[in-house]
Amino acid sequence: MKKQIQFADQKQEFNKRPTKIGRRSLSRSISQSSTDSYSSAASYTDSSDDETSPRDKQQKNSKGNGDFCIKNIKQADFGRREIEIAEQEMPALMALRKRAQGEKPLAGAKVVGCTHITAQTAVLMETLSALGAQCRWAACNIYSTQNEVAAALAEGGFSVFAWKGESEDDFWWCIDRCVNLEGWQPNMILDDGGDLTHWIYKKYPNMFKKIKGIVEESVTGVHRLYQLSKAGKLCVPAMNVNDSVTKQKFDNLYCCRESILDGLKRTTDVMFGGKQVVVCGYGEVGKGCCAALKAMGSIVYVTEIDPICALQACMDGFRLVKLNEVIRQVDIVITCTGNKNVVVRENLDRMKNGCIVCNMGHSNTEIDVASLRTPELTWERVRSQVDHVIWPDGKRIVLLAEGRLLNLSCSTVPTFVLSITATTQALALIELYNAPEGRYKQDVYLLPKKMGKRDTHIHMSTGNPRVQAKCKFTS
Amino acid sequence: MKKQIQFADQKQEFNKRPTKIGRRSLSRSISQSSTDSYSSAASYTDSSDDETSPRDKQQKNSKGNGDFCIKNIKQADFGRREIEIAEQEMPALMALRKRAQGEKPLAGAKVVGCTHITAQTAVLMETLSALGAQCRWAACNIYSTQNEVAAALAEGGFSVFAWKGESEDDFWWCIDRCVNLEGWQPNMILDDGGDLTHWIYKKYPNMFKKIKGIVEESVTGVHRLYQLSKAGKLCVPAMNVNDSVTKQKFDNLYCCRESILDGLKRTTDVMFGGKQVVVCGYGEVGKGCCAALKAMGSIVYVTEIDPICALQACMDGFRLVKLNEVIRQVDIVITCTGNKNVVVRENLDRMKNGCIVCNMGHSNTEIDVASLRTPELTWERVRSQVDHVIWPDGKRIVLLAEGRLLNLSCSTVPTFVLSITATTQALALIELYNAPEGRYKQDVYLLPKKMGKRDTHIHMSTGNPRVQAKCKFTS
Amino acid sequence: MKKQIQFADQKQEFNKRPTKIGRRSLSRSISQSSTDSYSSAASYTDSSDDETSPRDKQQKNSKGNGDFCIKNIKQADFGRREIEIAEQEMPALMALRKRAQGEKPLAGAKVVGCTHITAQTAVLMETLSALGAQCRWAACNIYSTQNEVAAALAEGGFSVFAWKGESEDDFWWCIDRCVNLEGWQPNMILDDGGDLTHWIYKKYPNMFKKIKGIVEESVTGVHRLYQLSKAGKLCVPAMNVNDSVTKQKFDNLYCCRESILDGLKRTTDVMFGGKQVVVCGYGEVGKGCCAALKAMGSIVYVTEIDPICALQACMDGFRLVKLNEVIRQVDIVITCTGNKNVVVRENLDRMKNGCIVCNMGHSNTEIDVASLRTPELTWERVRSQVDHVIWPDGKRIVLLAEGRLLNLSCSTVPTFVLSITATTQALALIELYNAPEGRYKQDVYLLPKKMGKRDTHIHMSTGNPRVQAKCKFTS
Amino acid sequence: MKKQIQFADQKQEFNKRPTKIGRRSLSRSISQSSTDSYSSAASYTDSSDDETSPRDKQQKNSKGNGDFCIKNIKQADFGRREIEIAEQEMPALMALRKRAQGEKPLAGAKVVGCTHITAQTAVLMETLSALGAQCRWAACNIYSTQNEVAAALAEGGFSVFAWKGESEDDFWWCIDRCVNLEGWQPNMILDDGGDLTHWIYKKYPNMFKKIKGIVEESVTGVHRLYQLSKAGKLCVPAMNVNDSVTKQKFDNLYCCRESILDGLKRTTDVMFGGKQVVVCGYGEVGKGCCAALKAMGSIVYVTEIDPICALQACMDGFRLVKLNEVIRQVDIVITCTGNKNVVVRENLDRMKNGCIVCNMGHSNTEIDVASLRTPELTWERVRSQVDHVIWPDGKRIVLLAEGRLLNLSCSTVPTFVLSITATTQALALIELYNAPEGRYKQDVYLLPKKMGKRDTHIHMSTGNPRVQAKCKFTS
Repeated sequence: MKKQIQFADQKQEFNKRPTKIGRRSLSRSISQSSTDSYSSAASYTDSSDDETSPRDKQQKNSKGNGDFCIKNIKQADFGRREIEIAEQEMPALMALRKRAQGEKPLAGAKVVGCTHITAQTAVLMETLSALGAQCRWAACNIYSTQNEVAAALAEGGFSVFAWKGESEDDFWWCIDRCVNLEGWQPNMILDDGGDLTHWIYKKYPNMFKKIKGIVEESVTGVHRLYQLSKAGKLCVPAMNVNDSVTKQKFDNLYCCRESILDGLKRTTDVMFGGKQVVVCGYGEVGKGCCAALKAMGSIVYVTEIDPICALQACMDGFRLVKLNEVIRQVDIVITCTGNKNVVVRENLDRMKNGCIVCNMGHSNTEIDVASLRTPELTWERVRSQVDHVIWPDGKRIVLLAEGRLLNLSCSTVPTFVLSITATTQALALIELYNAPEGRYKQDVYLLPKKMGKRDTHIHMSTGNPRVQAKCKFTS
Repeated sequence: MKKQIQFADQKQEFNKRPTKIGRRSLSRSISQSSTDSYSSAASYTDSSDDETSPRDKQQKNSKGNGDFCIKNIKQADFGRREIEIAEQEMPALMALRKRAQGEKPLAGAKVVGCTHITAQTAVLMETLSALGAQCRWAACNIYSTQNEVAAALAEGGFSVFAWKGESEDDFWWCIDRCVNLEGWQPNMILDDGGDLTHWIYKKYPNMFKKIKGIVEESVTGVHRLYQLSKAGKLCVPAMNVNDSVTKQKFDNLYCCRESILDGLKRTTDVMFGGKQVVVCGYGEVGKGCCAALKAMGSIVYVTEIDPICALQACMDGFRLVKLNEVIRQVDIVITCTGNKNVVVRENLDRMKNGCIVCNMGHSNTEIDVASLRTPELTWERVRSQVDHVIWPDGKRIVLLAEGRLLNLSCSTVPTFVLSITATTQALALIELYNAPEGRYKQDVYLLPKKMGKRDTHIHMSTGNPRVQAKCKFTS
Repeated sequence: MKKQIQFADQKQEFNKRPTKIGRRSLSRSISQSSTDSYSSAASYTDSSDDETSPRDKQQKNSKGNGDFCIKNIKQADFGRREIEIAEQEMPALMALRKRAQGEKPLAGAKVVGCTHITAQTAVLMETLSALGAQCRWAACNIYSTQNEVAAALAEGGFSVFAWKGESEDDFWWCIDRCVNLEGWQPNMILDDGGDLTHWIYKKYPNMFKKIKGIVEESVTGVHRLYQLSKAGKLCVPAMNVNDSVTKQKFDNLYCCRESILDGLKRTTDVMFGGKQVVVCGYGEVGKGCCAALKAMGSIVYVTEIDPICALQACMDGFRLVKLNEVIRQVDIVITCTGNKNVVVRENLDRMKNGCIVCNMGHSNTEIDVASLRTPELTWERVRSQVDHVIWPDGKRIVLLAEGRLLNLSCSTVPTFVLSITATTQALALIELYNAPEGRYKQDVYLLPKKMGKRDTHIHMSTGNPRVQAKCKFTS
Repeated sequence: MKKQIQFADQKQEFNKRPTKIGRRSLSRSISQSSTDSYSSAASYTDSSDDETSPRDKQQKNSKGNGDFCIKNIKQADFGRREIEIAEQEMPALMALRKRAQGEKPLAGAKVVGCTHITAQTAVLMETLSALGAQCRWAACNIYSTQNEVAAALAEGGFSVFAWKGESEDDFWWCIDRCVNLEGWQPNMILDDGGDLTHWIYKKYPNMFKKIKGIVEESVTGVHRLYQLSKAGKLCVPAMNVNDSVTKQKFDNLYCCRESILDGLKRTTDVMFGGKQVVVCGYGEVGKGCCAALKAMGSIVYVTEIDPICALQACMDGFRLVKLNEVIRQVDIVITCTGNKNVVVRENLDRMKNGCIVCNMGHSNTEIDVASLRTPELTWERVRSQVDHVIWPDGKRIVLLAEGRLLNLSCSTVPTFVLSITATTQALALIELYNAPEGRYKQDVYLLPKKMGKRDTHIHMSTGNPRVQAKCKFTS
């Protein structure tokens, strides 16, 4: 009863999703698919001209198991190779697998998951399995599934329900197939975006009686969990993986230091040496971008309004400017302020011919791209993610990813970084699953620093053998 | 008469080519095609399932001109966009075009060229045309033509004879079509590899009477010119562009500083931060690799036998080691010594699981790849240019480009660098074409530092507006 | 009455001082006097062989004013030059002087101060004066006064009571002379260490009725203010300058990045390039040391137990080690952990001949220097602040500053950094003096970010014209 | 006879010395004395108020030996400590001493030397002695002798004739005492500046019959040897140590990278972070200065006229400017072009208040200091080597070392670098002394790369144990 009332409330809450989450999903799917285009995966997927929906096919793996629904089981070998590549760059997860598989800390765990289905996720799933868990999995995004990885997982005995290019109806059907199985009921949820959690809340609220906890990775999903908690409607403990300290440290400074170079190079083949660059914003992302470009021989200018960050830019050797002071002379403009309309039409009008403009910040609103969609300007798509916008006098600027996040759209997220998140997810599942009664209430938690031994989670998830060596893992 | 005897000699000389040049051409074509796979060009080329040979087609551009032979004139728009991208990163050439088009220093020049047909070459050809030259062009490699660029050139009125995937017979047919035209005779040669020069020597020796000079870019072609000169058989002056100082400075230190990151990232998505890397050799290439990886947060070790270079490595903060001291612990091994068998099977046997091995040196012999082709090791091609070599105990190493040059095989050569060469080629043509009688004998020359005004050629070809601004161009 | 009881309490509280503060004062005086030995000041002071106590002399400046007590008024010209040098590197204070002297925000303020009497303090005092304040000043340390600066101040009309080499009795006498003047009563206190505040509490508690606030700079003084506040005995508002954000940011990372090089160079003339260095601790201080030494071509190892800092060290390209792994091979050992006994006798026994050992951390306990005071080891003082400790087999290590803070003992604190503190002190005085009734209670405060206009204090105190230019100063 | 004629010629040649060499000697003595002021040595020297000339004193060391002439034998203990400090930073020489003392490659050698008498020279002399040589030594500069080091050498049994503050007459008297000894005749010359060589040529030409060779270190001395050789008057082989590859590599890039920071810090205590600096010239010295300042967080601009160096500056991330573009905004101006009048009065007039101006180039003519000696400008000496030049409007610039070389005047030359030269000198003596008849003619030589085993000299003289370990020393 109480649940039903809750459900009604929930509904309303979740109704915000279509706009909000919908857009987010889209931008993520674009990022993932762009990633695909650089991997060998692309070709296998493209070459498949089978138009039958996976839902309509009879599917079986080589052992005769058919409890999955994917695009094409024949791609399993290709997928296995992608997984093997990923394993090389996921030392944290592989170490966890090795250290903990003796004691099987997830024995008896029935994990239902909803994430991007990529090689990195496959390494996570196979780790959970090695630790004793049973897994059923769906995709959290209709575009992001690597079909050959899904095939390799299905071939390996995982119940995976996902393919690239699902319809919205397919999307929910897949999630439902994961959850709704005669004689099997999940006791752990691993979610990315909150859609799986939402579905269980809406359709199978009674399931929560057996569920020991939720592990959630995304900003959006965590936000929804906090709302539920605030409203008193969260009925199991939840772990917020998104805000874990290792993830935060990595995702900005260290990750962007590499992806700014990668993203610019793949899209434009620009040589960095000797180029003049203005970076708008000197937070962690800006610091990473500036350090990388300085090291490659670019001359870097910084705009920044916060006095402490501005001072840091100065002391790190960057010339602090107002955008207008340098806009006519720079070769590259990079936004990473987190604010809106940092680069506006007036700035764009003054840029020199050939100037590259891109965004590394937190949204697609830092560059006022809308202001460029006027009749007198010609847009020319010259490559994937690369547009030339041409002024009447022939001047052209090079706009990357239409102002969306360059690091998601035009470079790969290093597997190493994904490994940190995945390890934290696995440790969070272990913690929630094994926690003594009463340690966690119906609330949202960060993974505790100390798990048995001190700082285990941070030591492990760094993935650095030197750091890991400093602690002994005990679940 | 004399010419005929010479021709016989020539023949023998050129007979070395099939092995030597053949291999080189192959390695270059591979590099180019790999580059293609990251550009938009790839899809247009692939989607074309027209199997008719270009030679068998009736071809005309939109103005009715048909003096060309390419794959598909309809791709001209796509090609034009690639050219426009290239123009953004070829400031040296564009500046030359702008500065010199008033006086048309190549008015009357009839240039026959044989180079890779890429967007960058197109910018060069259109610059020569703006400076007054007429051009006819063939490809110097059977794989490296960007069909859509060839289409754009043909549409623009250039007589281009080239397509991707020519047969050897096609190759010589195209060259012949450039040279052998009723009522038109070249007075300048621009060659890359020496095949065009060879063809004229062999078939049309009399043409040399009207030819004012040869401009040659490649190591191989230059080598052949020096042999001709030594043998007293060079019958026109030639400019050696390959050894120009700007090219040398760029191709090693600055170029490799960027391409080592690019090549590793595109093939493996490895995160550089925190990785342990050993770089074998601390010459210019090694210096570039080390500087880049250090800046990205890698821990870099260096092996070096020359005491001065070793000292430089020490003073630059790199730990000098013998390969064996660190081979068990490093994540990445990079060779750039210029020597043979720097990394041998014994080293490979001792590397840790997941170690990435690649070569940035001068040949494909630094890593003893042949030693890995033994029955107990399994090779798995996981991506284009990426092999996993797997030991019986499951250990795998990640071998890039089968030990060939990473920067040519797995990253793009920045357009900016190509621009330097192209500008030097253009300046060399201008110099030879305008030189007063007697300034150049029948010998091989480097472009003189002073062309009218001092250091013009270096100032211009740097492509850096600040550097260029320091001199006034006068032909 | 109530005050008297308080005073009794206070007394006990202050009785802790002799051990605790006494030691601190001592260590500071050493640092300052060592600094002197590099400045021109030293010679003037030394050459003065006048043994009469300043208290016994009749003193007058050139205008006939005699309300001061210093060593030798004749040194005023030399002092003026030192002040002029300091002004060059105190842009924040000079900008404040320039911007605010029109409105005289300290008109009517009667400031009694007790700080080190150095050229930098002189710039502060003359700024306060330009802003309208009257000042009387004593030294907070018996050794740290620059006599020639004191002379310049006295010549300029300031009532200064301080000389180098005061007795303890002199010390309190000077403070009393500042405070206890017929017909003059302070309304603001500027203190460094809390001795002045203590004296007024003890001797003239009624003075607090007219005092608008206390500005305190030191850790110790701030600590005592918080104790008073906690005990309910703080009777005026106080500003904690020590913990201001700009000071914190500067004093560690940026300042140590420079002083580690300066301190090592002045004491040992060591060449950094190619040296192997282990830095113990990768907090802000360690980060600064590592960055500087890496840039100079040293090979740097890091020890660190905190996993996040350890990870940062890895990602910044430093090899994470245990001290014992590298102790035999390193040329320099630097401690900056903030912990005790980081380098112990066992480590010292294993160091190689000539190893340099020094401390950049927060105390003199990181290196277990006491363990080196054993009969079998010979100590040889080879220079000021430099000891050779010699083992029976002839091995010697080079110990700097007997394990005290290298940056205070063996290098100068950049005037630029002192400028930041001084500006914050001036702004704090302005804020407290002008605050409307009730804004500040009898408590300890940090300077608010917003003073009229937003972030003024931070903008101004950075001293960077680019940062300052981003705000308008309004008191 | 022939010798006498030669002598007459020589005389004329040497007559150029007083101006040329005289100035050089002066600048070097200044550099050494400034160094002294930071070392413990200074005080011992200064405190000695004994005015008797050493030549008038009866001198004996503790063993009764009196064949020397120095200031004060009682300072021997202090000198020994300075030598011990120096040994720590002269690994190349100490390694040579250790490796070669078994075979005594200089047994029988009688070396007469004339160099700066410093702790570093003492380490060289004691090494030569350990290798079997007998030594007699004088100073090559009247100011540069460290008296306490001379005392330690005399105490140790060396025949040293030198003190700080010799008259010109003393200078030649000391040299003569080294050479002219009953029953002892030198067979090797080690010279720095050519004065000793000159003296023997002039006074004892017959001595050359027994002399096996000359080792010369300075630019000037080498220049004179080449002149002698050219004129056919060089009568023994000579080794040019000045142009050895290791010395060249070190003295510029690596040495200046450290001494620019040291020189600026010791004179001005300036904080580097956030400062704007213009470096004139991007040769090796400029590259070192720029790299160091960039690493410390300065914003660095470069002026350069050579197009290749200009390009390197661009590609290394420095903004290429004309001096006038930035002269108003920079905080520090550094010259290192090797040209005259790089910074002229007009530039100085436009600098902002507080700008620091110094020279790292090859002479004292890069800054037009003479132009500042005009009536309207006031000069104020604020510290040793630091002048404020004050304009009528109050603007002051900070001129260091009156425009002479900052690295010689205001910082120490790292002992490590001197070690390289000293090792090369020792190896050159070994080579000449042991060379088979006929290997060396009466000419000037560079030390051969191969001495027995390959590259020994370079390997050894690097002083880096890792580099040294790569070769086996054999004399």
